[in-house]
Amino acid sequence: MKLLQDKILAEGVNLGRGILKVDSLLNHQIDAVLMVAIGQEFARRFEHCAISRILTAEVSGIAPAMTTAYALGVPMVYARKHKPITMKEPVWVESAPSHTKGGEVHLMVSPEYLSARDRVLIIDDFLATGKTIDALARLVQNAGATLAGIGAVIEKTFEHGRENLSHWGVPIESLAIISEMRDDGTIVFAN
Amino acid sequence: MKLLQDKILAEGVNLGRGILKVDSLLNHQIDAVLMVAIGQEFARRFEHCAISRILTAEVSGIAPAMTTAYALGVPMVYARKHKPITMKEPVWVESAPSHTKGGEVHLMVSPEYLSARDRVLIIDDFLATGKTIDALARLVQNAGATLAGIGAVIEKTFEHGRENLSHWGVPIESLAIISEMRDDGTIVFAN
Repeated sequence: MKLLQDKILAEGVNLGRGILKVDSLLNHQIDAVLMVAIGQEFARRFEHCAISRILTAEVSGIAPAMTTAYALGVPMVYARKHKPITMKEPVWVESAPSHTKGGEVHLMVSPEYLSARDRVLIIDDFLATGKTIDALARLVQNAGATLAGIGAVIEKTFEHGRENLSHWGVPIESLAIISEMRDDGTIVFAN
Repeated sequence: MKLLQDKILAEGVNLGRGILKVDSLLNHQIDAVLMVAIGQEFARRFEHCAISRILTAEVSGIAPAMTTAYALGVPMVYARKHKPITMKEPVWVESAPSHTKGGEVHLMVSPEYLSARDRVLIIDDFLATGKTIDALARLVQNAGATLAGIGAVIEKTFEHGRENLSHWGVPIESLAIISEMRDDGTIVFAN
């Protein structure tokens, strides 16, 4: 997706050790126009998959997941990391490594909003090791729902998330695919 | 906003002690069509305020803040509660009581995305005591930016947030105003 790649080249910062800062468009500030275009692009790529629900994880997945849900005309659910007082048990829970705090983060989804009838598209901001998305896929499986696809805004191929998620046997679409982040700060796209 | 009130009456649950569960549309599942309509309504109410940036707090403010930002054609920034590895110091920090964990939560905004030139509209999911929104307003003040307005999707007047925020001297708009949550489960709107 050229608009996204151009934005990453213009505003993304290679902080070293494979860390990409895109806080100006995705992880702190949100470029709403770009986010709507991202949702439309995910909808185009998954329009033949009969998606009934989008699933993401709070926090940074919410914006692209919501615009995708809008473009596909389906609801979106975001897995909670902290149980709100309104969330009644039982809930589906899976764990993934925490990026910000070390240790593990629990991802919780209420059975009220994820049912065995659903065909689910998982959307997240990054596909790196794939561990967060794998936990979301296990939540789909726990609910007896059908995982129909996985979409990431930015993929870093050198962290091998695509291979780690291949066992789910579903289409994986990333809108910007980064194959290399060099020590001199260069960001190299796969295409 | 009638569409929102109807949704709250149809799907909201009065859990007692003033707690309103709207997890089906705002706090866990997102109704994307409703959220876009909410963004358009906020944009209509603040279109004459020369807003240059929307500010919200993660997590549940992100969806309505993003659709408002899209409708107004401005960027949106969400204050982070956990410092991501991409966020460099110095950052603006203010504290507010935590709804989910007890104690306090820190709200952090990078000076990169909030400047003295900005005219800021704060958007959040709930206006209850107003303490989270007050912390966001202090972040705006710290940055030397101008607070131009405050918008909440749902206001609970019996928690007095509007009075607690009146010292900022800016317009406060809520799209659904709840004046009473009765013990029998009834939800009463102000209008």
